[in-house]
Amino acid sequence: MTRILIRDGYVVTMNPKNQIIKGGSVLIDWDKIVAVGKDLKESADIVIDAGGKVVMPGLINCHTHLAMTLLRGVADDMELMPWLQTKIWPLEKHLNAERVRAGASLGALEMIKSGTTCFADQYFYMEEVAKAVDQSGIRGVLSYGIIEMESAEKRESELAAGEKLVRSCQGMANGRITTMFGPHAPYTCSTECLLKVKELARKYGVGIHTHIAETKWEYDEIKKKYGAHPVEYLDTIGFLGPEVLAAHSIYLAPHGISIYKNRGVKPVHNPVSNMKLGCGVSPVPEMLKSGIPVALGTDGAASNNTLDMINEMKFAALLNKVYKLSPTALPAEDVLKMATINGAKSLGMEKEIGSIEVGKKADIILVDLKKPHLTPVHNVVSHVVYSAVGGDVDTMIVDGKVLMQNRKVLTFEEAQVIKKAQDVSEEMLKEAGK
Amino acid sequence: MTRILIRDGYVVTMNPKNQIIKGGSVLIDWDKIVAVGKDLKESADIVIDAGGKVVMPGLINCHTHLAMTLLRGVADDMELMPWLQTKIWPLEKHLNAERVRAGASLGALEMIKSGTTCFADQYFYMEEVAKAVDQSGIRGVLSYGIIEMESAEKRESELAAGEKLVRSCQGMANGRITTMFGPHAPYTCSTECLLKVKELARKYGVGIHTHIAETKWEYDEIKKKYGAHPVEYLDTIGFLGPEVLAAHSIYLAPHGISIYKNRGVKPVHNPVSNMKLGCGVSPVPEMLKSGIPVALGTDGAASNNTLDMINEMKFAALLNKVYKLSPTALPAEDVLKMATINGAKSLGMEKEIGSIEVGKKADIILVDLKKPHLTPVHNVVSHVVYSAVGGDVDTMIVDGKVLMQNRKVLTFEEAQVIKKAQDVSEEMLKEAGK
Repeated sequence: MTRILIRDGYVVTMNPKNQIIKGGSVLIDWDKIVAVGKDLKESADIVIDAGGKVVMPGLINCHTHLAMTLLRGVADDMELMPWLQTKIWPLEKHLNAERVRAGASLGALEMIKSGTTCFADQYFYMEEVAKAVDQSGIRGVLSYGIIEMESAEKRESELAAGEKLVRSCQGMANGRITTMFGPHAPYTCSTECLLKVKELARKYGVGIHTHIAETKWEYDEIKKKYGAHPVEYLDTIGFLGPEVLAAHSIYLAPHGISIYKNRGVKPVHNPVSNMKLGCGVSPVPEMLKSGIPVALGTDGAASNNTLDMINEMKFAALLNKVYKLSPTALPAEDVLKMATINGAKSLGMEKEIGSIEVGKKADIILVDLKKPHLTPVHNVVSHVVYSAVGGDVDTMIVDGKVLMQNRKVLTFEEAQVIKKAQDVSEEMLKEAGK
Repeated sequence: MTRILIRDGYVVTMNPKNQIIKGGSVLIDWDKIVAVGKDLKESADIVIDAGGKVVMPGLINCHTHLAMTLLRGVADDMELMPWLQTKIWPLEKHLNAERVRAGASLGALEMIKSGTTCFADQYFYMEEVAKAVDQSGIRGVLSYGIIEMESAEKRESELAAGEKLVRSCQGMANGRITTMFGPHAPYTCSTECLLKVKELARKYGVGIHTHIAETKWEYDEIKKKYGAHPVEYLDTIGFLGPEVLAAHSIYLAPHGISIYKNRGVKPVHNPVSNMKLGCGVSPVPEMLKSGIPVALGTDGAASNNTLDMINEMKFAALLNKVYKLSPTALPAEDVLKMATINGAKSLGMEKEIGSIEVGKKADIILVDLKKPHLTPVHNVVSHVVYSAVGGDVDTMIVDGKVLMQNRKVLTFEEAQVIKKAQDVSEEMLKEAGK
């Protein structure tokens, strides 16, 4: 391993003081940040000139389904249930290990090229996703998507698959890969299943990645079935806690926010997916105001259709402003926190990642501002949130290793990954008769 | 001039049948498209290989304030009136001809690099904007922003400035530059002023570019002042007609849509600006359903903060879906029409631009799909609207001339334009004490 000095950039630390250091440098030794400041004189094996660039923590995508990149653009502009029943689910039946590996590699490549250094995933064939993450060099928090569908037999096999992933992949790739349990949602998992998951998560000391209150339909369904809205029901059965990562979290009224706050639940905002599927708007400003560290995620590429966390930040800021008819509803600084330090907090990794601070892992990206749409440079946080896109990220370092330099990814053969994904995606469509 | 053959791409024609030709080619002779189809065998001076690329009409940005690129990111996340009164207006006092030229050049460069071949502008020092457009190679429909503020004297000088622009710039640059009158809005121009504009526009045979019903405040203000909501008031005085380009058009209830339809008014949707300033949501699906060819625009970079029409399409589709809580509210195909053929219709240029058809001007862009976030390729319209960004455009032809090839812009020295814009923007902030 090497010492890397990143020199003379706009260092957006995302530390507790939200310091921005103009002409700042960052020194990396082995996998960690060892110095941050102006005029660092230390020697290094690799010196990266960050002139005209933003140096910031890598983005953390707290909710996605990585291999769904294979289904990007195969079905859009449809109602949720027909979209799932006639398009997504029939196609997913044609997934296999090889195909998931191809889709996950494509997703990991896309994340590197758009600034995401860590992500939380929930899908199938997760051991294959782990291989792709291992190769990519980024961090992944992986969970197997447990879907029970009212079958006690399936419950056992699904729980076993979830447990198998935790046992086989926790701590892989030098600790870059960790795991969670991934019960899909309160309408696809029974109370028994959720409580068993809770017990297993406690046993293994890992988190729980789930979907909560994504649609009005779910809200009504749970209310009908259990006599309480989703968050209230999940709290009553004792499922909620600080280890629960709750994607979407839209329909929380009347008491959902205070329950989240009291239990330490970690909601993940997915603005693009929620907009594209016409689901609704999560009460993000209210949750932030109450001290909940709301994180950000792209959801899968079938409902986004990218994994671009920089563009997702713009959507988050703007959706919440128009929803509240207030331009101050969600400022750029808050959104940048959601995509970095809040993400780290939500994954229980705030001591390791999410900001540029001495002692933390060196997960850092550089955003090149020397472009027409990023000129003039006055407020770099505004530029990152409102003007940049993923393609403006030009360098990525994770765990102290350079994964991309000048847009060239060093851990994948880009053309090969693209070709393989195209091939397996075409095979799936053909087999499914689509 | 030369013959150009664009070979073997996904040709998205946007013709009346919405044809998409896989492995299609386009032949350009002089400034016009002379053939579109598969297997074109004609010879050409320049052959452009469009393998793995979308070949589509250049995007038409129907509402912006180009030189406001100088104010990109200087003020965000503020209420509209303090934003204007304490930031934008004080800074605009420090505009001059040189600075507007610099800002307009930056804007034109940004538009080329993100696929916009034609735009409608309303601002000041418009002769300078015309020079930048002339140099850039793209098309501009320019108007001087008439702001009267209840002064009869100012009214005369503003109208004179508007008329001067029309007389001096109409038809410039081989017809690439045309003009309109640009009365700012019903709350900044009197009835007398608007009617004088209407008369002048008729005299010169040009259009009128204005803002209508952007905010609830304006709606209430006009109602208080004239006893009718903005669209009704403008109709009553005889201002509305097919030559009126109406930016924003949010607060149209109760009769605005039918008035627009009856008068042939051309509304422009500006989703990012409307979201960022917390203004509200225009009834776009309803207008499209009634047969109004709603166009798309970015507004100025101070309230967006880019001029990226591809990203604007994604915002348009998604904003309208979440607002209606329906994923079918505004499909990708409709949004692509808004950004191309509807834009041409709204500017009165549908016989010349807006689609790839024989006899039309050769205003064409190529979007490179060989990227992780645009893989796999199944539905290219979905990819352009939901997955691409401006930076994926790699080639631009306007009026039969290549303006950008492989992301290299041929009409501007990119680094010089960026440096000049940074310099004058810093001067303005310094002079304004910001």
